[in-house]
Amino acid sequence: MATILYPNHMEIDHGAISKIGMALEKNNIKRPLICTDKGIVEAGLYDILRRALPNDIDYFLFDETPGNPTEVAVKDALKIYKENDCDGIISIGGGSSIDLGKGVALCSTHDGSIGNWSVMNVGRDGVGACAPIIAIPTTAGTGSEVGGGSVIITEEGQKIVISSPHLLPKMAICDPDLTLDLPKYLTAATGMDAMAHCIEAYSTNAVNPPAAAIALDGLERVVTYLKRAVDDGHDKEARWHMMMAASEGAMAFSKGLGCVHSMSHAVGADPVLKAHHGTLNAILLPTVVRFNSPHIGEKVEKLKSAMGLSPDQDISDWILGYSVSIGLPRNLAALGVTEDMLLHFSEHCMTDPCHFANPVQPTVDQYMDMYREALTQ
Amino acid sequence: MATILYPNHMEIDHGAISKIGMALEKNNIKRPLICTDKGIVEAGLYDILRRALPNDIDYFLFDETPGNPTEVAVKDALKIYKENDCDGIISIGGGSSIDLGKGVALCSTHDGSIGNWSVMNVGRDGVGACAPIIAIPTTAGTGSEVGGGSVIITEEGQKIVISSPHLLPKMAICDPDLTLDLPKYLTAATGMDAMAHCIEAYSTNAVNPPAAAIALDGLERVVTYLKRAVDDGHDKEARWHMMMAASEGAMAFSKGLGCVHSMSHAVGADPVLKAHHGTLNAILLPTVVRFNSPHIGEKVEKLKSAMGLSPDQDISDWILGYSVSIGLPRNLAALGVTEDMLLHFSEHCMTDPCHFANPVQPTVDQYMDMYREALTQ
Repeated sequence: MATILYPNHMEIDHGAISKIGMALEKNNIKRPLICTDKGIVEAGLYDILRRALPNDIDYFLFDETPGNPTEVAVKDALKIYKENDCDGIISIGGGSSIDLGKGVALCSTHDGSIGNWSVMNVGRDGVGACAPIIAIPTTAGTGSEVGGGSVIITEEGQKIVISSPHLLPKMAICDPDLTLDLPKYLTAATGMDAMAHCIEAYSTNAVNPPAAAIALDGLERVVTYLKRAVDDGHDKEARWHMMMAASEGAMAFSKGLGCVHSMSHAVGADPVLKAHHGTLNAILLPTVVRFNSPHIGEKVEKLKSAMGLSPDQDISDWILGYSVSIGLPRNLAALGVTEDMLLHFSEHCMTDPCHFANPVQPTVDQYMDMYREALTQ
Repeated sequence: MATILYPNHMEIDHGAISKIGMALEKNNIKRPLICTDKGIVEAGLYDILRRALPNDIDYFLFDETPGNPTEVAVKDALKIYKENDCDGIISIGGGSSIDLGKGVALCSTHDGSIGNWSVMNVGRDGVGACAPIIAIPTTAGTGSEVGGGSVIITEEGQKIVISSPHLLPKMAICDPDLTLDLPKYLTAATGMDAMAHCIEAYSTNAVNPPAAAIALDGLERVVTYLKRAVDDGHDKEARWHMMMAASEGAMAFSKGLGCVHSMSHAVGADPVLKAHHGTLNAILLPTVVRFNSPHIGEKVEKLKSAMGLSPDQDISDWILGYSVSIGLPRNLAALGVTEDMLLHFSEHCMTDPCHFANPVQPTVDQYMDMYREALTQ
């Protein structure tokens, strides 16, 4: 049975931020809380948003989103939201700011600890109406702007997922001009996150032809434009296509993700390593594609075709070469991962939701083998 | 600027009708009005639906949907809806039953003549909340189950379009098993409607990469499976893919349609000819593709590639051959169209909304030329 869910409304183009007034009006938001981080403020992107806001809008600011959004930060933002009688959220930033905004949207209408409303506790249908969110991504990777999910670290230090159609941003304003000054490294790492989304989503067993078609289209875009965007951040055409590819990656993963993400989540949860999600995905992608290839039939050829590879090229080798060519680390060792951590990571993988969506479910030993391969490749 | 809207929730598979209970519960519908037509009742499909309904659901029936839904029929259905205190709609049938259901959904919450709420009068944003609709298509063609638009003939005899995100069915239950006994001719004509949607949507100038990717995927499916479904109606695999392709065609045409539809609407409005929409589209498609080809650049090659044609094959000739091979009439003359009608039709085209979405806007003379070509091809 194929369940097909899509985002409601996206505006994408150079200068799309001018649509913010329309977005607020359409969703009856007059007193938005703007959720973002200090980096976005310092980069001048917050000012661009402020200038685009209609004059009659009273807005309030929370700019302390941490690198990985926490329940503590959600509570701090919610306090501002409630004190000022806000009626909606504008999230501007990377995946963290958008995910934080979703946490605030949920807590504005749901009492108790945010953990009570996690997917594990109440599923996707257990969350009721939430404050409306307008999402404005400033990276091209996570695609959180077109998804209803969010990862939050609770006060107890647990990573939980909240997810609901009510948390899907009412509008995604995708303005590639906001990414022109994104540093090379972040461009590369977030771009490879989008590639991982497209490849993993396409590879799952779930039947969802529109999502599959979108995945291949997004993949073709990443392969064609990511290196250009890394080489010249002001290549506006490349930035447009990467912004599109990132959203397509997230539309596609309504179909599910797989072991790249179960393995990446395990390493990403390590509080000392503090490894970047997109970087981890880039490193793990070749290994997981190699592991999955015997199980996904003709999909390997379709992936290669979308990537412009010839039938005799090795897809994993190609991905690793591409990733290194745009400046990302080659292996997990470069991120400080050591052999003795791998068993813990592998066990962590076995309960990750993405583990179950992979075309086949690896054993702990198979996870160990994959981690070892990625450790020193 | 690309505006990207997608349907919310589709369930597609053999036996998907079993999801009706979940659909009603999810949308809090306890007293649905079932909108359908006599043909669906006689074919036993209404009974299949009834058997799938949970025991605690009180349902009511309107089975007098005309071939082209009218305001009169909407009023008749609305009367049953109101008398029985209904709280939602199940539309089961072809595009007509689904379109009629949308009319009832609108009129249940909007006063006055339905014409007051047409796109021409209030746009897409002028319609407020409507009764929730669950759509169950029994043909694979129109894709009305994943669209928010509906064509209704007013009491004054005008064809109007109502369209709103509030008219998008809350759930599309796509059960290809309901199409197994669809007659050959209707299978062919509705299937060619889906092909026309995919090709026209892909050809428009609107920028919407996910919709474009979906269009090509749907097109590939039609080319691969339509003839199989016509040759053997009980080919369940072919029926599945045609059901998917039809929905994909409609997801794609959120990107817009073109002259196949402006020309088809003009002929279809003739009350004497009573020409079938899908049949008209099949006949007009080759001519319009030939007219548009010089204006859509590399898209012609992408279309051919999705259709499995070689670069030197003529796409229009191929479509006409395919259409005739599945039993559809070759030209407009076979439908009773005569030369003297063409000027009136051509003038009608100039104000059709689809005229403006075509890659280039033909003049009246160019429409005349296209009609002449299709008249005797």
